[in-house]
Amino acid sequence: MKMKAIGTIHTPFADLAGMPIQPAGAAGVSGTVDVFEEYQDGLQDLDGFSHLVLLYVFHRSEGYNLRVVPFMDKEPRGLFATRAPKRPNPIGLSVVQLDRIDKGVLHIRNVDMLDGTPLLDIKPYVPEFDSSADVRTGWLAQARKTVETRQSDDRFR
Amino acid sequence: MKMKAIGTIHTPFADLAGMPIQPAGAAGVSGTVDVFEEYQDGLQDLDGFSHLVLLYVFHRSEGYNLRVVPFMDKEPRGLFATRAPKRPNPIGLSVVQLDRIDKGVLHIRNVDMLDGTPLLDIKPYVPEFDSSADVRTGWLAQARKTVETRQSDDRFR
Repeated sequence: MKMKAIGTIHTPFADLAGMPIQPAGAAGVSGTVDVFEEYQDGLQDLDGFSHLVLLYVFHRSEGYNLRVVPFMDKEPRGLFATRAPKRPNPIGLSVVQLDRIDKGVLHIRNVDMLDGTPLLDIKPYVPEFDSSADVRTGWLAQARKTVETRQSDDRFR
Repeated sequence: MKMKAIGTIHTPFADLAGMPIQPAGAAGVSGTVDVFEEYQDGLQDLDGFSHLVLLYVFHRSEGYNLRVVPFMDKEPRGLFATRAPKRPNPIGLSVVQLDRIDKGVLHIRNVDMLDGTPLLDIKPYVPEFDSSADVRTGWLAQARKTVETRQSDDRFR
Protein backbone atom coordinates (compact mmCIF):
# COMPACT_ATOMS: atom_id res chain seq x y z
CA MET A 1 0.00 0.00 0.00
CA LYS A 2 1.29 3.41 -0.89
CA MET A 3 0.79 6.42 1.36
CA LYS A 4 1.45 10.04 0.46
CA ALA A 5 1.96 13.15 2.56
CA ILE A 6 -1.05 15.48 2.69
CA GLY A 7 0.85 18.18 4.58
CA THR A 8 3.84 18.96 6.78
CA ILE A 9 4.06 19.35 10.55
CA HIS A 10 6.25 22.16 11.85
CA THR A 11 7.54 22.11 15.41
CA PRO A 12 10.44 23.60 17.40
CA PHE A 13 12.21 20.22 17.37
CA ALA A 14 14.85 19.99 14.67
CA ASP A 15 16.50 16.98 16.24
CA LEU A 16 15.51 13.91 18.23
CA ALA A 17 17.72 14.78 21.18
CA GLY A 18 15.83 16.84 23.73
CA MET A 19 12.43 16.28 22.18
CA PRO A 20 9.48 15.41 24.42
CA ILE A 21 8.54 11.77 23.93
CA GLN A 22 4.78 12.22 23.98
CA PRO A 23 2.31 15.13 23.77
CA ALA A 24 1.81 14.78 27.53
CA GLY A 25 5.42 15.89 27.89
CA ALA A 26 4.96 18.67 25.35
CA ALA A 27 2.23 20.59 27.15
CA GLY A 28 2.03 24.07 25.71
CA VAL A 29 4.58 23.52 22.94
CA SER A 30 3.13 25.09 19.81
CA GLY A 31 3.44 23.98 16.22
CA THR A 32 1.67 24.22 12.91
CA VAL A 33 0.36 21.81 10.32
CA ASP A 34 0.57 23.04 6.74
CA VAL A 35 -2.05 21.13 4.80
CA PHE A 36 -1.28 21.00 1.07
CA GLU A 37 -3.63 23.11 -1.01
CA GLU A 38 -5.34 20.24 -2.81
CA TYR A 39 -6.60 18.88 0.54
CA GLN A 40 -7.60 22.13 2.26
CA ASP A 41 -11.26 21.84 1.28
CA GLY A 42 -11.46 18.83 3.62
CA LEU A 43 -10.69 21.04 6.65
CA GLN A 44 -14.17 22.54 6.81
CA ASP A 45 -15.93 21.97 10.19
CA LEU A 46 -12.64 20.91 11.79
CA ASP A 47 -12.45 24.17 13.77
CA GLY A 48 -15.31 22.98 15.99
CA PHE A 49 -13.04 20.34 17.51
CA SER A 50 -10.65 21.16 20.34
CA HIS A 51 -8.43 18.09 19.82
CA LEU A 52 -7.21 16.19 16.78
CA VAL A 53 -5.63 12.83 16.13
CA LEU A 54 -2.69 13.28 13.78
CA LEU A 55 -1.22 10.32 11.90
CA TYR A 56 2.22 10.95 10.44
CA VAL A 57 5.41 9.30 9.30
CA PHE A 58 8.39 8.81 11.60
CA HIS A 59 10.47 10.05 8.68
CA ARG A 60 13.83 9.85 10.44
CA SER A 61 13.32 6.24 11.46
CA GLU A 62 14.78 3.42 9.44
CA GLY A 63 14.38 -0.28 10.08
CA TYR A 64 13.17 -1.73 13.34
CA ASN A 65 13.88 -4.29 16.05
CA LEU A 66 11.14 -6.44 17.56
CA ARG A 67 12.63 -5.89 21.05
CA VAL A 68 13.45 -2.39 22.18
CA VAL A 69 14.48 -0.62 25.36
CA PRO A 70 11.96 2.26 25.53
CA PHE A 71 12.81 5.74 26.77
CA MET A 72 10.80 5.09 29.90
CA ASP A 73 12.30 1.76 30.91
CA LYS A 74 15.50 -0.19 31.30
CA GLU A 75 14.17 -3.58 30.16
CA PRO A 76 13.83 -4.71 26.55
CA ARG A 77 10.13 -4.87 25.63
CA GLY A 78 8.19 -6.20 22.69
CA LEU A 79 8.09 -3.46 20.06
CA PHE A 80 4.28 -3.47 19.85
CA ALA A 81 4.07 -2.91 23.62
CA THR A 82 5.95 0.38 23.10
CA ARG A 83 5.52 3.61 21.15
CA ALA A 84 9.05 3.49 19.74
CA PRO A 85 9.31 5.17 16.31
CA LYS A 86 11.18 2.39 14.51
CA ARG A 87 8.33 0.08 13.47
CA PRO A 88 7.50 -2.15 10.48
CA ASN A 89 5.14 0.64 9.38
CA PRO A 90 6.63 3.80 10.92
CA ILE A 91 3.32 5.58 11.54
CA GLY A 92 3.13 7.96 14.48
CA LEU A 93 -0.05 8.97 16.29
CA SER A 94 -0.47 12.02 18.50
CA VAL A 95 -3.48 13.65 20.08
CA VAL A 96 -2.92 17.42 19.90
CA GLN A 97 -4.90 20.49 20.84
CA LEU A 98 -6.25 22.65 18.01
CA ASP A 99 -6.09 26.40 18.70
CA ARG A 100 -7.26 27.77 15.34
CA ILE A 101 -7.15 27.29 11.61
CA ASP A 102 -5.88 30.03 9.25
CA LYS A 103 -6.73 28.91 5.75
CA GLY A 104 -4.68 25.75 5.29
CA VAL A 105 -2.61 26.14 8.46
CA LEU A 106 -3.59 24.42 11.68
CA HIS A 107 -2.19 26.01 14.83
CA ILE A 108 -1.74 23.24 17.37
CA ARG A 109 -0.41 22.71 20.87
CA ASN A 110 1.23 19.80 22.67
CA VAL A 111 3.36 18.79 19.71
CA ASP A 112 5.90 15.98 20.07
CA MET A 113 7.01 15.49 16.48
CA LEU A 114 10.14 16.49 14.62
CA ASP A 115 10.00 19.60 12.45
CA GLY A 116 9.23 18.63 8.86
CA THR A 117 7.24 15.51 9.73
CA PRO A 118 5.05 14.35 6.81
CA LEU A 119 1.36 14.30 7.70
CA LEU A 120 -0.75 11.30 6.63
CA ASP A 121 -4.17 11.99 8.12
CA ILE A 122 -6.19 14.23 10.43
CA LYS A 123 -9.09 12.81 12.41
CA PRO A 124 -11.30 14.61 14.91
CA TYR A 125 -10.63 13.41 18.47
CA VAL A 126 -13.87 12.11 19.96
CA PRO A 127 -13.78 10.76 23.54
CA GLU A 128 -16.55 8.22 22.82
CA PHE A 129 -14.39 6.69 20.09
CA ASP A 130 -10.88 7.29 21.30
CA SER A 131 -10.76 7.00 25.07
CA SER A 132 -11.36 4.10 27.42
CA ALA A 133 -11.87 3.69 31.12
CA ASP A 134 -10.61 0.91 33.41
CA VAL A 135 -7.31 0.76 31.61
CA ARG A 136 -4.30 -1.39 32.53
CA THR A 137 -0.98 -0.29 31.11
CA GLY A 138 1.44 -3.13 31.82
CA TRP A 139 5.11 -2.20 32.14
CA LEU A 140 4.20 1.45 31.61
CA ALA A 141 2.02 1.58 34.71
CA GLN A 142 4.83 2.97 36.82
CA ALA A 143 6.99 4.46 34.13
CA ARG A 144 4.28 6.60 32.55
CA LYS A 145 4.00 8.79 35.59
CA THR A 146 7.38 10.20 34.72
CA VAL A 147 6.64 10.84 31.04
CA GLU A 148 6.23 14.56 31.48
CA THR A 149 9.85 14.96 32.42
CA ARG A 150 11.43 12.45 30.05
CA GLN A 151 13.00 13.48 26.81
CA SER A 152 14.15 11.70 23.72
CA ASP A 153 17.79 10.85 23.17
CA ASP A 154 19.54 9.45 20.16
CA ARG A 155 18.73 5.77 20.61
CA PHE A 156 16.23 5.76 17.75
CA ARG A 157 18.23 7.98 15.48
CA MET B 1 5.85 5.75 1.38
CA LYS B 2 5.08 2.07 1.23
CA MET B 3 3.22 0.28 3.98
CA LYS B 4 2.80 -3.46 4.37
CA ALA B 5 0.37 -5.60 6.34
CA ILE B 6 1.80 -7.12 9.54
CA GLY B 7 -1.31 -9.21 10.20
CA THR B 8 -5.02 -9.62 9.51
CA ILE B 9 -8.02 -8.59 11.62
CA HIS B 10 -10.91 -11.05 11.78
CA THR B 11 -14.39 -9.89 12.77
CA PRO B 12 -17.99 -11.02 12.32
CA PHE B 13 -18.50 -8.27 9.71
CA ALA B 14 -18.20 -9.57 6.16
CA ASP B 15 -19.89 -6.53 4.66
CA LEU B 16 -20.15 -2.80 5.35
CA ALA B 17 -23.92 -2.88 5.68
CA GLY B 18 -24.97 -3.44 9.28
CA MET B 19 -21.51 -2.91 10.73
CA PRO B 20 -21.10 -0.73 13.82
CA ILE B 21 -19.47 2.55 12.88
CA GLN B 22 -17.16 2.85 15.87
CA PRO B 23 -15.92 0.56 18.66
CA ALA B 24 -18.31 2.39 21.03
CA GLY B 25 -21.12 0.87 18.98
CA ALA B 26 -19.46 -2.53 18.92
CA ALA B 27 -19.33 -3.10 22.68
CA GLY B 28 -18.77 -6.76 23.34
CA VAL B 29 -18.28 -7.77 19.69
CA SER B 30 -15.30 -10.12 19.61
CA GLY B 31 -12.65 -10.52 16.97
CA THR B 32 -9.08 -11.68 16.52
CA VAL B 33 -5.89 -10.26 15.14
CA ASP B 34 -3.60 -12.77 13.45
CA VAL B 35 -0.11 -11.29 13.57
CA PHE B 36 2.17 -12.71 10.89
CA GLU B 37 4.85 -14.99 12.26
CA GLU B 38 7.79 -12.75 11.42
CA TYR B 39 6.39 -10.02 13.72
CA GLN B 40 5.19 -12.14 16.64
CA ASP B 41 8.33 -11.60 18.69
CA GLY B 42 7.27 -7.95 19.00
CA LEU B 43 4.15 -8.95 20.96
CA GLN B 44 6.01 -9.61 24.20
CA ASP B 45 4.77 -7.51 27.16
CA LEU B 46 1.63 -6.54 25.23
CA ASP B 47 -0.54 -8.76 27.42
CA GLY B 48 -0.11 -6.34 30.32
CA PHE B 49 -2.23 -3.78 28.49
CA SER B 50 -6.02 -3.87 28.61
CA HIS B 51 -6.53 -1.68 25.54
CA LEU B 52 -4.73 -1.33 22.22
CA VAL B 53 -4.68 1.19 19.41
CA LEU B 54 -4.93 -0.65 16.09
CA LEU B 55 -3.97 1.06 12.85
CA TYR B 56 -5.23 -0.67 9.72
CA VAL B 57 -6.17 -0.17 6.10
CA PHE B 58 -9.72 0.61 5.00
CA HIS B 59 -9.15 -1.99 2.31
CA ARG B 60 -12.58 -1.75 0.73
CA SER B 61 -12.35 2.02 0.32
CA GLU B 62 -11.33 3.53 -2.98
CA GLY B 63 -10.90 7.20 -3.70
CA TYR B 64 -12.24 10.00 -1.54
CA ASN B 65 -14.21 13.22 -1.53
CA LEU B 66 -13.18 16.23 0.53
CA ARG B 67 -16.80 16.78 1.56
CA VAL B 68 -18.83 13.88 2.93
CA VAL B 69 -22.16 13.30 4.61
CA PRO B 70 -21.16 11.21 7.66
CA PHE B 71 -23.25 8.35 9.03
CA MET B 72 -24.13 10.48 12.01
CA ASP B 73 -25.28 13.60 10.21
CA LYS B 74 -27.29 14.96 7.31
CA GLU B 75 -24.98 17.85 6.38
CA PRO B 76 -21.88 17.58 4.21
CA ARG B 77 -18.77 18.02 6.37
CA GLY B 78 -15.09 18.48 5.64
CA LEU B 79 -13.57 15.01 5.30
CA PHE B 80 -10.94 15.62 8.00
CA ALA B 81 -13.70 16.57 10.47
CA THR B 82 -15.12 13.05 10.02
CA ARG B 83 -13.99 9.47 10.48
CA ALA B 84 -15.21 8.40 7.04
CA PRO B 85 -13.16 5.52 5.57
CA LYS B 86 -12.53 7.05 2.14
CA ARG B 87 -9.51 9.26 2.78
CA PRO B 88 -6.35 10.30 0.89
CA ASN B 89 -4.50 7.79 3.08
CA PRO B 90 -7.17 5.23 4.03
CA ILE B 91 -5.80 4.43 7.49
CA GLY B 92 -8.28 3.39 10.17
CA LEU B 93 -7.73 3.77 13.91
CA SER B 94 -9.64 1.89 16.59
CA VAL B 95 -9.13 1.54 20.33
CA VAL B 96 -10.04 -2.06 21.24
CA GLN B 97 -10.01 -4.11 24.39
CA LEU B 98 -7.43 -6.91 24.65
CA ASP B 99 -8.71 -10.08 26.31
CA ARG B 100 -5.73 -12.38 25.81
CA ILE B 101 -2.94 -13.39 23.47
CA ASP B 102 -2.52 -16.98 22.25
CA LYS B 103 0.82 -17.14 20.49
CA GLY B 104 0.39 -14.80 17.54
CA VAL B 105 -3.36 -14.35 17.91
CA LEU B 106 -4.80 -11.40 19.82
CA HIS B 107 -8.33 -11.89 21.13
CA ILE B 108 -9.98 -8.50 21.15
CA ARG B 109 -13.34 -6.93 21.92
CA ASN B 110 -15.25 -3.89 20.62
CA VAL B 111 -14.26 -4.48 17.00
CA ASP B 112 -15.66 -2.26 14.27
CA MET B 113 -13.62 -3.37 11.25
CA LEU B 114 -14.45 -5.54 8.29
CA ASP B 115 -13.33 -9.15 8.35
CA GLY B 116 -10.00 -9.51 6.56
CA THR B 117 -8.80 -5.99 7.34
CA PRO B 118 -5.00 -5.63 6.88
CA LEU B 119 -3.24 -4.60 10.09
CA LEU B 120 -0.55 -1.89 9.92
CA ASP B 121 0.44 -1.34 13.54
CA ILE B 122 -0.35 -2.14 17.16
CA LYS B 123 0.33 0.42 19.88
CA PRO B 124 -0.41 0.14 23.59
CA TYR B 125 -3.26 2.43 24.62
CA VAL B 126 -2.04 4.77 27.36
CA PRO B 127 -4.50 7.32 28.78
CA GLU B 128 -1.73 9.86 29.47
CA PHE B 129 -0.82 9.82 25.77
CA ASP B 130 -4.11 9.11 24.07
CA SER B 131 -6.91 10.78 25.96
CA SER B 132 -7.74 14.41 26.64
CA ALA B 133 -10.07 16.28 28.93
CA ASP B 134 -12.08 19.45 28.22
CA VAL B 135 -12.85 18.32 24.71
CA ARG B 136 -15.11 20.07 22.20
CA THR B 137 -16.42 17.93 19.35
CA GLY B 138 -18.01 20.36 16.91
CA TRP B 139 -20.79 18.97 14.71
CA LEU B 140 -20.44 15.62 16.46
CA ALA B 141 -21.37 17.06 19.86
CA GLN B 142 -24.99 16.09 19.52
CA ALA B 143 -24.69 13.33 16.95
CA ARG B 144 -22.13 11.30 18.87
CA LYS B 145 -24.56 10.48 21.61
CA THR B 146 -26.39 8.26 19.14
CA VAL B 147 -23.31 6.42 17.90
CA GLU B 148 -24.03 3.29 19.85
CA THR B 149 -27.17 2.62 17.85
CA ARG B 150 -26.01 3.72 14.40
CA GLN B 151 -24.82 1.27 11.82
CA SER B 152 -22.96 1.51 8.58
CA ASP B 153 -24.80 1.43 5.28
CA ASP B 154 -23.43 1.27 1.75
CA ARG B 155 -22.57 4.93 1.24
CA PHE B 156 -18.83 4.31 1.46
CA ARG B 157 -18.86 1.06 -0.49
